[in-house]
Amino acid sequence: MINLTCVKIVVKPEFIEPFIQATLENHRESLKEPGNLRFDFLQSKEKPEEFMLYEVYLSDEAASAHKSSAHYIKWRDTVADWMAVSRQGYRYNVVAPAQIGQWRS
Amino acid sequence: MINLTCVKIVVKPEFIEPFIQATLENHRESLKEPGNLRFDFLQSKEKPEEFMLYEVYLSDEAASAHKSSAHYIKWRDTVADWMAVSRQGYRYNVVAPAQIGQWRS
Repeated sequence: MINLTCVKIVVKPEFIEPFIQATLENHRESLKEPGNLRFDFLQSKEKPEEFMLYEVYLSDEAASAHKSSAHYIKWRDTVADWMAVSRQGYRYNVVAPAQIGQWRS
Repeated sequence: MINLTCVKIVVKPEFIEPFIQATLENHRESLKEPGNLRFDFLQSKEKPEEFMLYEVYLSDEAASAHKSSAHYIKWRDTVADWMAVSRQGYRYNVVAPAQIGQWRS
């Protein structure tokens, strides 16, 4: 079953630029994972210090593998002190699109 | 520029099932719009009465055209009384993927 998580991250204003660079690297590497379906990196229009990662994996196992990857661990440790508050993950079940094929870019 | 909105919707518990059916119809029709890139329909894992629509359009004009479409207006009017609170839209700028081609399924 698809594993979909929205991660909300609020960054201290002075770290917006390095956060973007570090997260772009995590984005690029995450897209190479065989179980990754999407890793959209978004910035709030109203609050530029607020970001959202839209992370979609083929399975819970694929999502777990991501959290063990070198690029994820590097990102997590790099950005930890740049966050204004702890990041929050929101888990969703996919209602639609129902077919895996519709999720592959 | 890509127009990306997350719409958070909380439904009265007794209307979860009809809400899913009405939104699946809106999902199917929205995917046919030429300016639509994505219309993901998600249900919170922790709170089944909470939904999220992840709507991505090629441009602000395409997003506006969606709001004038017959299927959107039908959906909006059908589900209006089923919501526990007013729905909320969150607008984002896309940091990555930066290329439109990466957004097309």
